Amino acid sequence: MSGKLFNKVALIGIGLIGSSLARAFRRESPETEIIACARRAETLAAVRRLAIADATTRDPAQAAADADLVVIATPLSAYAELGERIAPVLKNHAILTDVGSVKQAVIRDLQPHVPSGVHFVPGHPVAGTEHSGPESGFAELFRDRWCILTPPPETAPEPVAAVGRMWESFGMHVVTMSADHHDKVLAMTSHLPHLIAYTIVGTATNLEESLKSEVIEFSASGFRDFTRIAASDPVMWRDIFLNNREAVLEIVQRFTEDLTALQRAIRWGEGDKLQELFTRTREIRRSIIEAKQA
Amino acid sequence: MSGKLFNKVALIGIGLIGSSLARAFRRESPETEIIACARRAETLAAVRRLAIADATTRDPAQAAADADLVVIATPLSAYAELGERIAPVLKNHAILTDVGSVKQAVIRDLQPHVPSGVHFVPGHPVAGTEHSGPESGFAELFRDRWCILTPPPETAPEPVAAVGRMWESFGMHVVTMSADHHDKVLAMTSHLPHLIAYTIVGTATNLEESLKSEVIEFSASGFRDFTRIAASDPVMWRDIFLNNREAVLEIVQRFTEDLTALQRAIRWGEGDKLQELFTRTREIRRSIIEAKQA
Repeated sequence: MSGKLFNKVALIGIGLIGSSLARAFRRESPETEIIACARRAETLAAVRRLAIADATTRDPAQAAADADLVVIATPLSAYAELGERIAPVLKNHAILTDVGSVKQAVIRDLQPHVPSGVHFVPGHPVAGTEHSGPESGFAELFRDRWCILTPPPETAPEPVAAVGRMWESFGMHVVTMSADHHDKVLAMTSHLPHLIAYTIVGTATNLEESLKSEVIEFSASGFRDFTRIAASDPVMWRDIFLNNREAVLEIVQRFTEDLTALQRAIRWGEGDKLQELFTRTREIRRSIIEAKQA
Repeated sequence: MSGKLFNKVALIGIGLIGSSLARAFRRESPETEIIACARRAETLAAVRRLAIADATTRDPAQAAADADLVVIATPLSAYAELGERIAPVLKNHAILTDVGSVKQAVIRDLQPHVPSGVHFVPGHPVAGTEHSGPESGFAELFRDRWCILTPPPETAPEPVAAVGRMWESFGMHVVTMSADHHDKVLAMTSHLPHLIAYTIVGTATNLEESLKSEVIEFSASGFRDFTRIAASDPVMWRDIFLNNREAVLEIVQRFTEDLTALQRAIRWGEGDKLQELFTRTREIRRSIIEAKQA
């Protein structure tokens, strides 16, 4: 990598993604000055202990003032208020970006506050683990994963490219699409799988006690994979479902219809229908392996 | 490990599990004579190429004649006919076992054929991968996984112990329970997760083409984990669902109710309900990690 990415970066929200970003800056652009902002004092104490920022503050306006790049990395429910608080201090030509998993809602909540002269580049690094908090971050989190940018039509191309170069320098493959399309794709690839995983683990927690302990013992037979996903951050995921409601409900509806059809095939012993579907789903796995996403 | 486990073992069905078993015998009990039986000539050709059996045959009766231990490792739909074909040749004091993922149906299909003097020990090594066929087997498949034995009350204790010792020598932890209880536990830990994974991947295959290719590109955000499970053997899984119908339908019903409740919470913006569940499911993950099943 080459040179300094930005002079001064404000990271507002410093959990898994924010702290991974801080670490990636430290490694790829050590001269960049990093200010970390979090609501909780313990979080900032952890950031100082980890030495991944040059300064810490609980005041988002203080963090954003004078920053060339402001990255919002909090749960989605904090965006609107944050937008309001930082808008007055954003400097001319600053770039405002974020890492949220839903993009139409981010534009809805932030864009009204963005002053003219500030470049707004909503983004979504599609990377994560089931762990949360600043201790769980690592610079390699972004390596070989996708980053989706969804700039509104008004945003100039150069700041979009600058944010893209930043993510590329952290190892990501960057792609641009509309916020609406992003939300549909992610509803299928990420939000529905998480909802299903939360549901199935919830179903297991409601079992009679005699069964429940054995479900844990024998979880390696399939259930376990779901529990990993269902251990993801509760507040972050609450906000994702509430903020991508239309796309999620649409895809849940399709899923439910498909499940009902399978349920019916099992009830009536229609083995051919089951086998046909199970053969078709195997192909998808092959496509994913070919696309090197496995 | 110590000594020879059995003199002569017939492996009827030599896919992922059967061929892993052959390899485990080769390593832990090299003097045991292994006869592999499969319906398809190509499968047996692969077995000979892999040199994991002493003899191969397409005739299950020929394989079972004179064997001390007969292991059925075919899809469940083949059991009843196999039972009928091998029953006349089973030698006195032979042990008949299997590796099927549903146990009440196995007892229903095999027990009527078991001659007196033959010991019937239904078993389920809870191990597997999404790959199938004799090439995909490996002796370590069983290491540190559970094997559940579900002997009917009539089966004498010694043959149950002998089958248990065999699995233990291959690295498994052996536990005994009723077939009915097994089928309920596995419906939750294995059959429902597979059904859900097949469904969700099926839902994705039905998307408009424009979305479908992106679902594959961005699959790493959750969806990918489901595609691995949904790549499991189609015939084996068709048979599991058809043969554990009652327990699967009962648990699917519970799951659907839970999903509907979440769907409703998303529609009405009930964030508290979502967050409460997502916090609870995180605990289950912790239990699994504590139970060393992660």
